[in-house]
Amino acid sequence: MVYRKNYNFSDYLVSLDSIIILENIDGECPMVKGNKYGTHRVIEPEGTLPQPAFKISNDMTIYDNEILIDVDYLNIDSASFTQLKEEARGDLEKIKKKIMSIVQERGKMQNPVTGSGGMLIGKVEKIGSALKDKIDLNVGDEIATLVSLSLTPLKIENIMDINPDIDRVEIDGKAILFESGIYAKLPEDMEDTLALAALDVAGAPAQVKNLVKKGDYVLILGATGKSGLMCSYMAKKMVGENGKVIGQARNEARAEFLKETGFCHEVIIADVLNPTNVLVEVLDVNDGDEVDIAINCLSIPNSELSSILPVKDKGIVYFFSMATSFTKAALGAEGIGKDVTMIIGNGYTKNHAQITLDLLRESDTLRKIFDEKYVN
Amino acid sequence: MVYRKNYNFSDYLVSLDSIIILENIDGECPMVKGNKYGTHRVIEPEGTLPQPAFKISNDMTIYDNEILIDVDYLNIDSASFTQLKEEARGDLEKIKKKIMSIVQERGKMQNPVTGSGGMLIGKVEKIGSALKDKIDLNVGDEIATLVSLSLTPLKIENIMDINPDIDRVEIDGKAILFESGIYAKLPEDMEDTLALAALDVAGAPAQVKNLVKKGDYVLILGATGKSGLMCSYMAKKMVGENGKVIGQARNEARAEFLKETGFCHEVIIADVLNPTNVLVEVLDVNDGDEVDIAINCLSIPNSELSSILPVKDKGIVYFFSMATSFTKAALGAEGIGKDVTMIIGNGYTKNHAQITLDLLRESDTLRKIFDEKYVN
Repeated sequence: MVYRKNYNFSDYLVSLDSIIILENIDGECPMVKGNKYGTHRVIEPEGTLPQPAFKISNDMTIYDNEILIDVDYLNIDSASFTQLKEEARGDLEKIKKKIMSIVQERGKMQNPVTGSGGMLIGKVEKIGSALKDKIDLNVGDEIATLVSLSLTPLKIENIMDINPDIDRVEIDGKAILFESGIYAKLPEDMEDTLALAALDVAGAPAQVKNLVKKGDYVLILGATGKSGLMCSYMAKKMVGENGKVIGQARNEARAEFLKETGFCHEVIIADVLNPTNVLVEVLDVNDGDEVDIAINCLSIPNSELSSILPVKDKGIVYFFSMATSFTKAALGAEGIGKDVTMIIGNGYTKNHAQITLDLLRESDTLRKIFDEKYVN
Repeated sequence: MVYRKNYNFSDYLVSLDSIIILENIDGECPMVKGNKYGTHRVIEPEGTLPQPAFKISNDMTIYDNEILIDVDYLNIDSASFTQLKEEARGDLEKIKKKIMSIVQERGKMQNPVTGSGGMLIGKVEKIGSALKDKIDLNVGDEIATLVSLSLTPLKIENIMDINPDIDRVEIDGKAILFESGIYAKLPEDMEDTLALAALDVAGAPAQVKNLVKKGDYVLILGATGKSGLMCSYMAKKMVGENGKVIGQARNEARAEFLKETGFCHEVIIADVLNPTNVLVEVLDVNDGDEVDIAINCLSIPNSELSSILPVKDKGIVYFFSMATSFTKAALGAEGIGKDVTMIIGNGYTKNHAQITLDLLRESDTLRKIFDEKYVN
């Protein structure tokens, strides 16, 4: 089955049956049209997308809607790297071997235990002909991929070095970005490590920008963490003069730190595992009223009701925490008869990288905190 | 600490310290002001709400914002009843004993294995003085509670009968509804069993009513199930003449059944565990376009990407399925770079019972299907 490229449907070619062979371009090997989401590289199981797939093809001949990247560093995600370190009992050579064997087996750096990946930094080496005029990238640009390594075709020739303090692996290798793959050009006005620390939570402040309106009363749970700080800062910008941002901290020291940033109008100390405690503290600094929006930036489980309870009917609860339980949220809201809209935090929204990096440029306080806490 | 009732804050009294003793009313025992969400009845662990609590008080002396119900039937939820039956190897006497011991231990009928509860039907016996003028209930009204038994104080004197075919337990006992507890008066124009079957999924069609706009293109996954049928019917009403409702069925027979209902403009047969298959089938009946909203009414896991993939950027994915994984949804959308809003299905929204029962009154087809499939 062959679809024409001028038909909208062609964006969605879904099996190897449906590949269109194009003419030889640039004297390179003939490029072929791949699926926007990379399903053409899934080896097993069939019908899945590259992330849930067990094995994908890491053949470095690109399809005409793919980008080839000359990789400098892998930033293994924290859960994955911790697991690798433990398994290897801290032996870096063993970690190297394990990474090599995972990538050889799966065609991607997806930790088989945690299921997670990470990001990579590299230089654009080649851009598929079907993408050249559609994107703002040039060969040679330095980029960070913002889709997970758990779905990115990767081939490693050699691992040069591992820096276990910042989960960073220096490699000689190549990777492929699909047409739907998202990326950010690394900015020239800040260090790569700083940019990466921010890009890691890029979805959060960008979603807050979409969500929070002038005059809103907003509660940020976990306001002293990496995404919590970014969300607090952004929320305060969005609510304007008549709104209010309430930041939650778990103890005196963190509350003091949060107050000094000036990112929140009010700072509360509350135990997020005790929903009524959170509610009482919120009401106490908000004239007895519930908030319009609660944003959960915590990283611990069982904080669903603490996010739902302080929100007024018809309000919004935004869960960024990956420790959120779907059923606890759904049954929790029903159990207390709360008519709130609960949103699953999406790590991607349009322009999220730009929006997030701009916050570091805009706020010296934020940049200083990130430099001190998150950059090695 | 005592708060005055005319202060907004008083709705949220959160510990037994904060009880206000009111005057003797109606010659009954003195009633006391309880917390809106029933936290005053939590025995352990402290600070939790009644649902996550292990044990709550089932003392049948009501607080002044509670309702006392003379219970006729418990409708144990399906997951819980299946577990009880298995544990008792089908012996109804053993099931009776187990139910008695659970309620005695926890003060509520919350299955310790599944964590779930169910609903109850009964007559209003007493209404707390603080609620009398605020609600549309009278003593003697027959109601179904729409909050879970897993948070409802319950005392059973005697279990008269168990009907294992419809998970129904006839009891002599009493229960308490908190101020935030939701309920529906049982309608006189339909059988209790029919009303219950509909109320069981009341949140779904009511949320669709809020969500779907004129002209929307809507995909219903699991359109042939109980909530799927209700959602399809409601979605078709909402999209009007220029919109489109696409219903997914898993095989020919179910697709044929769905077509005959006339609830969908288009019916597709697709495997929800194969996201690309779902996408292709949707595009095929939709001129190659993605939909505005996908509504997941399935009851099986791993259908997150099948819900996300067919939706256009800035579109909405609504997950009613309790089998939804938060992380699979969040990472799935990020992995394919989809800027969609993903909503956690909330079993409660304003007037959801009325909205749902009205659908049965409005559509003879829907009522006939429910009578045949879901009423014993």
